[in-house]
Amino acid sequence: MSLEPLPGGKNRGKVLLLPGERLDALGPDGGLKIVQHPKLFRFSLDAYLLAAYARPRRGETVLELGSGNGAVLLLLAARTEAARVVGVEIQPILVEMAWRSILLNGLAGRIALYRGDFRQEKAVAEGPFDLVVANPPHIPAGGGTRSPAGVLAVARHELTCTLWEVVAAAARWVRDGGRFIMVHRAIRLTEIMATLTTWRFTPKRLTMVHPRPEAPASLLLVEACHGARPGLMVTPPLFVRDRSGTFTPAMEEVFGGRWSMNW
Amino acid sequence: MSLEPLPGGKNRGKVLLLPGERLDALGPDGGLKIVQHPKLFRFSLDAYLLAAYARPRRGETVLELGSGNGAVLLLLAARTEAARVVGVEIQPILVEMAWRSILLNGLAGRIALYRGDFRQEKAVAEGPFDLVVANPPHIPAGGGTRSPAGVLAVARHELTCTLWEVVAAAARWVRDGGRFIMVHRAIRLTEIMATLTTWRFTPKRLTMVHPRPEAPASLLLVEACHGARPGLMVTPPLFVRDRSGTFTPAMEEVFGGRWSMNW
Repeated sequence: MSLEPLPGGKNRGKVLLLPGERLDALGPDGGLKIVQHPKLFRFSLDAYLLAAYARPRRGETVLELGSGNGAVLLLLAARTEAARVVGVEIQPILVEMAWRSILLNGLAGRIALYRGDFRQEKAVAEGPFDLVVANPPHIPAGGGTRSPAGVLAVARHELTCTLWEVVAAAARWVRDGGRFIMVHRAIRLTEIMATLTTWRFTPKRLTMVHPRPEAPASLLLVEACHGARPGLMVTPPLFVRDRSGTFTPAMEEVFGGRWSMNW
Repeated sequence: MSLEPLPGGKNRGKVLLLPGERLDALGPDGGLKIVQHPKLFRFSLDAYLLAAYARPRRGETVLELGSGNGAVLLLLAARTEAARVVGVEIQPILVEMAWRSILLNGLAGRIALYRGDFRQEKAVAEGPFDLVVANPPHIPAGGGTRSPAGVLAVARHELTCTLWEVVAAAARWVRDGGRFIMVHRAIRLTEIMATLTTWRFTPKRLTMVHPRPEAPASLLLVEACHGARPGLMVTPPLFVRDRSGTFTPAMEEVFGGRWSMNW
């Protein structure tokens, strides 16, 4: 099933909130709003990181694998000149939640949403895309503490898709020479690089994300180019907070959708 | 041919310098001296990084693959409680140069040196070792500008050994569960991780080295454990110089052979 884009702006500013849901600001400038359900699903820091790192160029098409409640889709559509932003999400409740946010922000003309399992070949009935992005479940099935709610568990744990399946899907929908950008856990760097390579993605840009300057990296951002020649730039790291616990200027840029030239 | 260790201290303080050679301080405290030949071979920043990162524990045995003029051997023997530090080097002129420095510093009782090609099974007639370290040639054969002198070219370019051959040699001489520590170019991270994995080394600790905080990483330090379970810590990065061009406190620690607990 696919939800076809509606003309933008029609329902702007109106949204139906279901029990337990709330409307949150997305980004520091108050320009975007997003429907969330604290017990089912909330976007995290990862969404800001992925959207800021992705930087689609003017006129490019973008696919997000596992779009959750739509935070990255909204950020990309509102802040970049991408021609078309497409999401695919397996959980109907999140697809529906995302769609209400898309309508609310008047972005239905630029975002399309598919409900489906991106491990299946027909899940997205268009493409190939210039850019594929993903913030896949980070925790291997059986690892960590299982989140209590089913919806959240699917989003956080590798229950419905593994790293391997995410990269395989990216390879399916990316155009020749196109890019795949992912946020993932730093502890899995070795496996991430190997899996990308197996699917003919050459890592070209890597940024380690440290919660504080003196802490090990918790997350990584990686850009890989399909069929490209080897040669990786490891950018300066991103420190989320400084030693006093305040967000760094670099992280404030990320929240605002800017990203300094260093990265 | 192997040069057997001589009793330490006998020739301490005396050294024969050949034409073109000079005696340099190794480390900031003036406690170590090293014979160098500016046109043939000089140790670089990499040697300090590798020695500081390696941190052999008391009583451990250490092998350096491609020991050059002996900078890392001297630093490890003088600054750690390693029981035995062994080097293997293919170029006779560098073996001889290193040996004079070892004698000069009175470390002949703790360092052994083999002249040989570590791609060959019998190059080092002892082992296995608790720890294998390497600062291998960084530049693929045919890449970059070939250094004019032959001795230097062999040390800098992958003329006599590739990344693959270095890791294969490490796997041959490391004990089961032992560690391999390498300094290499950040641009080759993907290939490094893949090659380590192929030879059953699991990367456990990775540190990116940036010349300045705002610059991409130029080097990386990696510690891999033979036959270990996956799980990588990406430490805080090391910035060599600050924005003003001064060595950072962290880099001063490296020169002094200390290395803060963060790494």
